[in-house]
Amino acid sequence: MPNTQATLLIIDDDRVVRASIAAYLEDSGFTVLQAVDGEQGLAMFKSEHPDLVICDLRMPKLGGIDLIRQVVDIDPDMPVIVVSGAGVMNDAVEALRLGAADYLIKPIEDLVVLEHSIKRSLRRVRLEKENQRYQQQLQESLNLLKEDQDAGHLAQMNMLPVTPWDTKNLHFAHKVIPSLYLSGDFVDYFRIDEDQVFFYLADVSGHGASSAFATVLLKFITTSWLYRLHRKGLVRDLKPSILLGHINEGLINSKIGKHVTMVMGIINENDNTLTYTMGGHLPLPVLCSEGKGHYLEGTGKVVGLFEDAVFEDIKIQLPTSYTLTLLSDGILDLLPGSDLKGKETMLPTLIAEHDGSLESLSDALGMTALEASPDDISLLFIRGKAL
Amino acid sequence: MPNTQATLLIIDDDRVVRASIAAYLEDSGFTVLQAVDGEQGLAMFKSEHPDLVICDLRMPKLGGIDLIRQVVDIDPDMPVIVVSGAGVMNDAVEALRLGAADYLIKPIEDLVVLEHSIKRSLRRVRLEKENQRYQQQLQESLNLLKEDQDAGHLAQMNMLPVTPWDTKNLHFAHKVIPSLYLSGDFVDYFRIDEDQVFFYLADVSGHGASSAFATVLLKFITTSWLYRLHRKGLVRDLKPSILLGHINEGLINSKIGKHVTMVMGIINENDNTLTYTMGGHLPLPVLCSEGKGHYLEGTGKVVGLFEDAVFEDIKIQLPTSYTLTLLSDGILDLLPGSDLKGKETMLPTLIAEHDGSLESLSDALGMTALEASPDDISLLFIRGKAL
Repeated sequence: MPNTQATLLIIDDDRVVRASIAAYLEDSGFTVLQAVDGEQGLAMFKSEHPDLVICDLRMPKLGGIDLIRQVVDIDPDMPVIVVSGAGVMNDAVEALRLGAADYLIKPIEDLVVLEHSIKRSLRRVRLEKENQRYQQQLQESLNLLKEDQDAGHLAQMNMLPVTPWDTKNLHFAHKVIPSLYLSGDFVDYFRIDEDQVFFYLADVSGHGASSAFATVLLKFITTSWLYRLHRKGLVRDLKPSILLGHINEGLINSKIGKHVTMVMGIINENDNTLTYTMGGHLPLPVLCSEGKGHYLEGTGKVVGLFEDAVFEDIKIQLPTSYTLTLLSDGILDLLPGSDLKGKETMLPTLIAEHDGSLESLSDALGMTALEASPDDISLLFIRGKAL
Repeated sequence: MPNTQATLLIIDDDRVVRASIAAYLEDSGFTVLQAVDGEQGLAMFKSEHPDLVICDLRMPKLGGIDLIRQVVDIDPDMPVIVVSGAGVMNDAVEALRLGAADYLIKPIEDLVVLEHSIKRSLRRVRLEKENQRYQQQLQESLNLLKEDQDAGHLAQMNMLPVTPWDTKNLHFAHKVIPSLYLSGDFVDYFRIDEDQVFFYLADVSGHGASSAFATVLLKFITTSWLYRLHRKGLVRDLKPSILLGHINEGLINSKIGKHVTMVMGIINENDNTLTYTMGGHLPLPVLCSEGKGHYLEGTGKVVGLFEDAVFEDIKIQLPTSYTLTLLSDGILDLLPGSDLKGKETMLPTLIAEHDGSLESLSDALGMTALEASPDDISLLFIRGKAL
């Protein structure tokens, strides 16, 4: 809206002053309304919705100060310019305190001064409205984006397994704290036959929607592959390294441009063994028993980057009673100190001291108080006892 | 910050006034600094960074008006309360015009009035700062969420096929206009052997991150299934209905809670036939030849909702020269009128009139000018000629 389309309301009982101001402002392109006293002025203000009010202070029926008070009460953003005699300074102060935009002394030597004041006031109002509109749009965009993300978050969280979960002599529990809304961390576990339980923890590069796509793929590739093996009666021959190879291939072919670090394993409750494979994941899993903790060995390429990547299976005998803790590297940010090497060294000891349950462990790691963090943080906790 | 921790700077050459105000305000819990003239006041303002300034107007060395002008110049948000004699009304008006927060007449009968004015001014400043901070946080959250969505959008768009794409006597082109950033619409097409070209168009319920998850799954299920058939040398036996059944199963098992409508087909260039299957998709595909267009027949359940859903294949002989247009239902929002039935009736005619290329067609449908829309809109255009 250019200024010249604005409607101005002049309220003044002095016909000559009113007419000369009106004529000048009409020549400048404004639409000008005129009222002969405060009462008429207030009525016209209510019915005509002008963009700006110019008023005298000393008027019959309704004085300028009361008029301003009522105008500002109806519309706090309405610019009011007072044009009044020099003899009523107290009122001038009061008018400005009430929120009048400007105060000009009659007679106005040059009406350019008034026009300048009008334009400045209209510009201020316009800027304030633009600012409000901008803020509103910002809030609406944010709400829409958050709705999107919340729906995505919900879909993603739905795909996580039940926690805690007890099966025979194994206890599983997990905690995933997403950065922002969509996480690049994912865990899963389920029974694949009478003896074997399968699990993995994955950490997709980055976070947000694109990383969450990769976690959806992981879940899908894993479950559908196991489902197929099941149908063919081949599930006993399942090798984590082969499945990790499939995931590697699937991620590359998907073209979503994401890579993942993973730890994947199968616990056989019959012979109390663990067969696991590593896809470039750090920190390594921590195995605790009898109050002591140590990292499992193993390495392997990051998953989803190299077409020729080959993964290997490592099989170990599990202790009679143990806990196995898988963590994403976001956990290292929670530990005190700035030395990564030092943090890695202290982690197994810290875990061994608090490995009674997921709760005491996540308390000790400072996860409990967190709702969201700069990086995704996740923890998969497995407690087992030989049958 | 409670008011009582605020630091106030009193600038007044009247020692008695200054001391009495200072004593009162210190009793109220404020930290009070004192300056004996404007010059010292300005220096202390610069060095001490008070939260509020109380000043006289008539002072030696640097008058109150000039002082306010300089203070406001340094910090436009600084609240300045003028406490001055009644004899300098002109200055009072000037002070308020310059942005002074309040004007109190000396002698102040009750210092509660001053305290009230101080607290009101400090509250205003605090509110403005909170408002700024809020707006800044809003903008930062928005930027982060948008970054997330943009990365997701990029990953999703990377998965779309090349457009346009020519293979033997077939020409493929597509256009996907996402709502917001992440689309629930998806198209794909590729050659599966020397004779056959495969394609589909899918419309996932809703939009945003959760719907985009489903499109990622679609792409993955389709390509990995075809890849497996290829490896087994079974690709000649590919039936769209079987693949759609796999997608149905995959979506249900994924637990992302999304369903999809789809059209999927295979064009055999050797015998110029089309074999297609439908998953509850509307509008139906439009086949045009010799300037006339008609909907293909077919129905089928929505994909990803019913475990027992069965899909059927329909095989038709293609005309010697034809175009086949697949659309998502978002396209209907673009057509004039409000009657859905009427829009569906006019669509084949409209397409037949503009089916020279994807460009002329999307022009005619009003897609060209759109960057984003309330619903996802997508169009897959295939032009073929018998070999």
